[in-house]
Amino acid sequence: MLYGRAFLPEIQEMVDSRDFKGLREAMVEFAPADAADLLINLKPEDRAVVFRVLPAALAADIFEYLEHDAQEELLHGLAQNTVAEMLNAMAPDDRTALLEELPGSVTKQLIGLLTPDERRIATQLLGYPEESVGRLMTPDYVAIRDSWTMTEVLDHLRRDGRDSETMNILYVVDERGRLIDDIRLREVVLAPADRKVTEIADYAVVSLHAIDDQEEAVRAFERYDRTALPVVDGQGFLVGIVTVDDILDVAQEEATEDIHKIGGVQALEEPYLDTGFFSLVRKRALWLCVLFLGELLTTSAMAHFEEELERALVLALFIPLIISSGGNSGSQAATLIIRALSIGEVTLGHWWRIMRREVMAGLALGSVLGVIGFLRVVIASQFGDTYGPHYVLVGITVSVTLVGIVLWGTVSGSMLPLLLRRMGFDPAVSSAPFVATLVDVTGLVIYFSVAVVILRGSLL
Amino acid sequence: MLYGRAFLPEIQEMVDSRDFKGLREAMVEFAPADAADLLINLKPEDRAVVFRVLPAALAADIFEYLEHDAQEELLHGLAQNTVAEMLNAMAPDDRTALLEELPGSVTKQLIGLLTPDERRIATQLLGYPEESVGRLMTPDYVAIRDSWTMTEVLDHLRRDGRDSETMNILYVVDERGRLIDDIRLREVVLAPADRKVTEIADYAVVSLHAIDDQEEAVRAFERYDRTALPVVDGQGFLVGIVTVDDILDVAQEEATEDIHKIGGVQALEEPYLDTGFFSLVRKRALWLCVLFLGELLTTSAMAHFEEELERALVLALFIPLIISSGGNSGSQAATLIIRALSIGEVTLGHWWRIMRREVMAGLALGSVLGVIGFLRVVIASQFGDTYGPHYVLVGITVSVTLVGIVLWGTVSGSMLPLLLRRMGFDPAVSSAPFVATLVDVTGLVIYFSVAVVILRGSLL
Repeated sequence: MLYGRAFLPEIQEMVDSRDFKGLREAMVEFAPADAADLLINLKPEDRAVVFRVLPAALAADIFEYLEHDAQEELLHGLAQNTVAEMLNAMAPDDRTALLEELPGSVTKQLIGLLTPDERRIATQLLGYPEESVGRLMTPDYVAIRDSWTMTEVLDHLRRDGRDSETMNILYVVDERGRLIDDIRLREVVLAPADRKVTEIADYAVVSLHAIDDQEEAVRAFERYDRTALPVVDGQGFLVGIVTVDDILDVAQEEATEDIHKIGGVQALEEPYLDTGFFSLVRKRALWLCVLFLGELLTTSAMAHFEEELERALVLALFIPLIISSGGNSGSQAATLIIRALSIGEVTLGHWWRIMRREVMAGLALGSVLGVIGFLRVVIASQFGDTYGPHYVLVGITVSVTLVGIVLWGTVSGSMLPLLLRRMGFDPAVSSAPFVATLVDVTGLVIYFSVAVVILRGSLL
Repeated sequence: MLYGRAFLPEIQEMVDSRDFKGLREAMVEFAPADAADLLINLKPEDRAVVFRVLPAALAADIFEYLEHDAQEELLHGLAQNTVAEMLNAMAPDDRTALLEELPGSVTKQLIGLLTPDERRIATQLLGYPEESVGRLMTPDYVAIRDSWTMTEVLDHLRRDGRDSETMNILYVVDERGRLIDDIRLREVVLAPADRKVTEIADYAVVSLHAIDDQEEAVRAFERYDRTALPVVDGQGFLVGIVTVDDILDVAQEEATEDIHKIGGVQALEEPYLDTGFFSLVRKRALWLCVLFLGELLTTSAMAHFEEELERALVLALFIPLIISSGGNSGSQAATLIIRALSIGEVTLGHWWRIMRREVMAGLALGSVLGVIGFLRVVIASQFGDTYGPHYVLVGITVSVTLVGIVLWGTVSGSMLPLLLRRMGFDPAVSSAPFVATLVDVTGLVIYFSVAVVILRGSLL
């Protein structure tokens, strides 16, 4: 693959010597994605130089591939008429993505630079809720009527199709603009010229709603294996299309958000290295502090059992082991359920099935750890007296606690995401560290309660 | 959207009454994805009944949308000639995905049912390494020559294009079959009939290599916003194409795998609810046991400091708080870096930049927690004597330890994924629980070492 940055020295040379003709000729050779990659490796002021020599349509194409940061910076460095030309030439869906990232005042100013037609499109798209399908849409689709022949369709394409985002799929609408079918361009090409659309149409069409969540759009694309899907409003009128390249980006962003949340970080909005240091710290500090405050309860729980600890200090030795085992089993369960919810593999209706599985899994996993823990105490006690004369009872205490705490971990880890979803929150908030903290506090109570019962009369 | 399962009662009725004609007529109305959704809600033996009445091409289409489990089960329930017809009609890429899931003996048997042509294709595709682009390929593309006119291209499409996976992009090859360009069907449709391919070609083409990792294919699709990309072999010969629907699936599967690993679970290969109970427990037990064995070192560390604990039991109260804070900060850092590596935002070359950021982040985050921790001890000591007469020194000990352990968490959490990648392992193996365990053990050593220095002469 030809990456733009390999040509960086040549381009830099042309920028420095102000060889605008050579620059323009060189830049048009690259794929827009590669040109963007090259530009990003230039100094910001040099990027503006390159942009000024490009034809507006190509500039817009390349601009669409830049990160929002670089886009914003570039807008400042360009003359107003260059900005206006480029914004008007941008694909409406990419333009929406840019405008929604910028501060309100800048967005307003930029919308003012658009032609009346483009301005109507931009404000309409920005009118849809954040994270909705409407924000991903482009109105640049090809609509046809079912009374047309193939010849008429092809004439229409040649006349009006040049600006469409994709021509792979054509949308059949009725006289009022309601979506009634979609047909692929290949079907038109393969059919005889005098055949009518109505003869090749099957009047079955999968569509999205403009106010649907983008997550639903991802699932529809996964389900139907399409390269584009039409979007309708509440009355069934065709209002735009969504293309699969944007869906791939949404799917990746959503996975990244989930992963960050599962790791106990507020989702970063930009790549790790592009996130400012203070933003990076802030996004972690919030959760870390919440978890810390929760974890402070462990000191209270420990203080509550200080008397038992004093009498049987040996119990302290197993505290990290026990609470971390509960935390780990909880993280596992939470992670599995959060991801399954997020890709639609499980729904709230499955809660009872999940509960039964996790109770069984918790008992099985807890028993495995319980046996290892017991053996460790008993075997180590053959070679030293770290665990004292009542080592068998200590081993039983540790072992029983492990079963209880792992069970508690799997059950709370699996149920918490479902509960959060039920209450309308994002299940991924029940991050692995969050579940671990919950299990830590309750785990200590389980541990000392088990110890009091088993060790009463011997150590306690 | 029309989901198949709404029609389940009608379909079930037709199956029960053996109304094969009605069944066939009803099934052809559904989109293949919806028909698959409907079938999956029937009893396995009824699925076979439905499949037997479908035309082979439609049966293959629907079959491609079933999960591998259901596919395998269905293959057992169908007569050999039905299986043969369906396998031959399947898209080569989906067939590869099925064949690679089945046990070797079944795969061999099924390949035996293919026609010589399809058999050659299937064995060739299976010859590429697992997780390689070759395994995602289909050879059903349209290749054209650059000497042709648009009319010749369209004639070629009408003659040979019907079976191609996509016609949206046509691939231009030279006389020996080497890929030299790609052009979109829309360009052909929009160009005058007598124009030659060479006039609209730009001889710049982005392609994948058959032995590339599928992850690279995902990045190329994200980068270039294509619906299909051509695949070439080492000599530049066009050997197939990869379509974006398969890429979306790969991206989602990889994100799921990463999430599972980050959560400390071996990646499940099937949806949570479809994973058998024993497989579910096994995939969690392995990591849970490894972590448990690692965590057993904490009991040794604790035993090592038992004397200090005996003299200053108050130190025990903070153990869960301290080790979990280290674990949480480590999980955060590991999660961020694992995801950034996996989507290509950071590379090994960034290690020093990441290290500097994480050292600073660790100091900042540790200081925040250190201050909260110190205040907690000092304020609580105004209302009770849980922390004894030397509470200020205890507070300082906790506070200094928190800075140290959070710093250690961020540094080890961020460097471990890079180290694993460097050594050729999957960075996601350094799951959050794994980092937490590492930090737990070392954290105890940090804690008691700090305590010995600060509390010497007072409590210790």
